[in-house]
Amino acid sequence: MADSSAIDFVVRPIGRVASPLTSTADAPRQGDEGAPDAYLILDSEVQAGLHGIGVGDEIIVLTWLHEADRSILKVHPRGDLSRPEQGVFNTRASSRPNPIGLHRVRVLNIDGQRMHVSELEAIDGTPILDLKPVLGSIEER
Amino acid sequence: MADSSAIDFVVRPIGRVASPLTSTADAPRQGDEGAPDAYLILDSEVQAGLHGIGVGDEIIVLTWLHEADRSILKVHPRGDLSRPEQGVFNTRASSRPNPIGLHRVRVLNIDGQRMHVSELEAIDGTPILDLKPVLGSIEER
Repeated sequence: MADSSAIDFVVRPIGRVASPLTSTADAPRQGDEGAPDAYLILDSEVQAGLHGIGVGDEIIVLTWLHEADRSILKVHPRGDLSRPEQGVFNTRASSRPNPIGLHRVRVLNIDGQRMHVSELEAIDGTPILDLKPVLGSIEER
Repeated sequence: MADSSAIDFVVRPIGRVASPLTSTADAPRQGDEGAPDAYLILDSEVQAGLHGIGVGDEIIVLTWLHEADRSILKVHPRGDLSRPEQGVFNTRASSRPNPIGLHRVRVLNIDGQRMHVSELEAIDGTPILDLKPVLGSIEER
């Protein structure tokens, strides 16, 4: 099989996270482990893409974890040296070949291109790549 | 606020989907809407990253939906013209500025770099960007 990495793709951030978290050292490992509320500041040129998202909705935010080390393939889960090393694809470590963060949040408020969301562990300035609705049952789609 | 899209990032596929689905026209909209089982063919250089993933595990697969139109910001949900247009970020449409697919599958078998998974709606040849475990309760992490 040919090496798949021969073809690269370019991702273009659609906005940035604004958060009181300024360092990954201070950030909780997941949103539901004590992360603060934060703002998603979306670019004006993608604002039409937000149409229909409402206060109270649960959404998935994909980010680019810009401080990650892309060369790492094995880690101790949660940085706990007493736990045996795992492949990064079996963990939520930020360090991985394509450091895309996956965050499930609730929309608290929307003001134009500025969306207030609950419990986001991404640090201030983290690039946002995509937003998706959380899927309900098949009947609700 | 400065335009966030001024800084781009490069994603490098870690493998490809092998599937009996060869056209997006034939593909179901979500895995649980009748998608076939498929194979994830991972590149040899990321194999160490798979360590710890086991048969029966539920994982999240992030893909690059290479046939998507990145310029589209509004769509009729599920292509149904009777439904009012929505912003792409309020849908799971493949067309969106960064066409990253999010798929939840179960691991059926693992043979080295080749992973058999359940119900994947991505078509044959779709680049794979990342794998992540589905998170259990906080106590299980």
